[in-house]
Amino acid sequence: MDEVGCRRKTRRIHLGSVPIGDGAPVVVQSMTNTETRDVEKTVNQIRRLARIGCEVVRVAVKDKEAAHVLSRIREKISLPLVADIHFDYRLALMAIEQGVEGIRINPGNMSGSRIREVVRAAQERGTVIRVGVNAGSLEKSIWVRYGGPCARALVESALSHVKRIEDMGWTQLKISVKSSHVPTMIEAYRMLADATDCPLHLGVTEAGTLLNATVKSAVGMGILLHEGIGDTIRVSITGDPTQEIPVAFGILRTLGLRLVGPEIVACPTCGRCEIDVAGLARKVEKRLLDFKTHLKIAIMGCVVNGPGEAKEADIGIAGGKGRGLLFKRGKVIGKLKEEEMLERLIREVYAMEKEREEKK
Amino acid sequence: MDEVGCRRKTRRIHLGSVPIGDGAPVVVQSMTNTETRDVEKTVNQIRRLARIGCEVVRVAVKDKEAAHVLSRIREKISLPLVADIHFDYRLALMAIEQGVEGIRINPGNMSGSRIREVVRAAQERGTVIRVGVNAGSLEKSIWVRYGGPCARALVESALSHVKRIEDMGWTQLKISVKSSHVPTMIEAYRMLADATDCPLHLGVTEAGTLLNATVKSAVGMGILLHEGIGDTIRVSITGDPTQEIPVAFGILRTLGLRLVGPEIVACPTCGRCEIDVAGLARKVEKRLLDFKTHLKIAIMGCVVNGPGEAKEADIGIAGGKGRGLLFKRGKVIGKLKEEEMLERLIREVYAMEKEREEKK
Repeated sequence: MDEVGCRRKTRRIHLGSVPIGDGAPVVVQSMTNTETRDVEKTVNQIRRLARIGCEVVRVAVKDKEAAHVLSRIREKISLPLVADIHFDYRLALMAIEQGVEGIRINPGNMSGSRIREVVRAAQERGTVIRVGVNAGSLEKSIWVRYGGPCARALVESALSHVKRIEDMGWTQLKISVKSSHVPTMIEAYRMLADATDCPLHLGVTEAGTLLNATVKSAVGMGILLHEGIGDTIRVSITGDPTQEIPVAFGILRTLGLRLVGPEIVACPTCGRCEIDVAGLARKVEKRLLDFKTHLKIAIMGCVVNGPGEAKEADIGIAGGKGRGLLFKRGKVIGKLKEEEMLERLIREVYAMEKEREEKK
Repeated sequence: MDEVGCRRKTRRIHLGSVPIGDGAPVVVQSMTNTETRDVEKTVNQIRRLARIGCEVVRVAVKDKEAAHVLSRIREKISLPLVADIHFDYRLALMAIEQGVEGIRINPGNMSGSRIREVVRAAQERGTVIRVGVNAGSLEKSIWVRYGGPCARALVESALSHVKRIEDMGWTQLKISVKSSHVPTMIEAYRMLADATDCPLHLGVTEAGTLLNATVKSAVGMGILLHEGIGDTIRVSITGDPTQEIPVAFGILRTLGLRLVGPEIVACPTCGRCEIDVAGLARKVEKRLLDFKTHLKIAIMGCVVNGPGEAKEADIGIAGGKGRGLLFKRGKVIGKLKEEEMLERLIREVYAMEKEREEKK
């Protein structure tokens, strides 16, 4: 798993065995949407998330029943577990006692005096704290002062809580300042990046269903990540959280920050197209859903850009009339009929993965 | 249709009645994937594109048969028509004669001497020319000199052709420098933005199927648009081009550049969620597919961020146990059972659109 690009310098924190910040690869996380107290369902969802590459997982802890099962969930999973706490500091204390690697507290709904006890417990157990401000639940006093959840308001809320925690001597912290309004979120994270060396957890909140959430997250996080800002990310999508992982890795891969999984370069198919590019591309994607090695696979329909793109890819097909040339690392290695393309491509892709692993 | 934000200063061009550059709203375009010579299919696809907001459409002209039907297509559609030409300058001449509003030529596959005749014809008819460089079909001499399609190579190819056309006295030009590698595309457009006042047509080429193409386009174009770069955009998606339009408007809406269509703010649903947010959000989206007015609609599952987001939206629901509060412009206007939510929301949304239109 490569990591490229110039990143903002931050302090390093550890969520269990997962390093965050200070040059570590940008970490991909998600959150379950099961009832947390339903241990079996929650564990199953976490395992599905882990299988497709999720690296940290958060669960909502809305009551004592949920808090009580955290250690049982933890025993059964391989990912660091973060407990999401709102309103009740006692749930935070219980979560820490249960051994979770991190807790997320929201300054907007937990009073400062109660946080003191939580910080002391976290420090004793080495629990990471995320100070997670959210535009939708900004502290009332700040909301009133700024007239709404603008970037400056979000940042003030986050920094004042971080300062309080740091003053108590605990520095294993990360910060998020999420908004559903992307320009606000961009501005807020830029301000944070200037003001603190805490690792930053990026997210666009309440982003909506798959396609809209993908657009908003890719724009908002893409802009920040390209500036070197962001140490861990969560793409929020309404619905099954496993949808979030490919989008997250897609954003990171697009910017060259994490080269994980296949990158399928396929033409949009115009009136020149002579093979079924869309069908072939979708089939290849489906067959490679669990494939973790980064390979650039080109599937191109005609002679205009086909040979050029196919040559630049690790492996590629440039289609002609019902046929196509197969390129591997810039060289033609075969001429295929359309019906042969899928199986041959998949075979070559797995062979290339094997070659790479042998080289290591 | 609002237009906001600080944009790079460019010259103004006109694709028929559609202004591009110099403060005009960022124009959304697409390209058909029918056989162009099949007039009926092509016109039907263009009409479907127009209905959902596409503002300029391009068709591939790969042979004389395609070139010959362009005026027949043009008569039947309301959008400016751009002919995509490769290899054969005579097809460009034919397309111009047929009255298309624009042609796209690719310096990588049309020799400079032949372009002279094309430019003269374009100037006589007032046809806009896009100089469309593509990494997959970069001029051989430049490819060799730079060792590949790097940003500098793409820009050199584009600018040398633009200069030749401008030296002949024709300035109704726009430029694209597309690559399937997003960091290259970002760098190339930034260099172009510094070097010319031509309007820029943004695109990530060969971006792949829906979700991957959305990620790559949103990251690449999002970064550039947020810097004020880009006057017209095309999201390339393998498959049906009508998929491209909501993604394009989604990117522009996210950055506040074009406020078109509903923006649905919905929570990712966690263990706290007490109504079926995902189902409701998807149903609302589906019902509002053709809805052009910009409204922020919040659909939230619990009391943590729900009331805050719902209050900030034009209209919103903050769910509780099988029930929810309905907010309109920050005020609670009703308490709904879950089964009432969809119809009531849709009714309110159309009522708000009507109110807005009456105010105009």
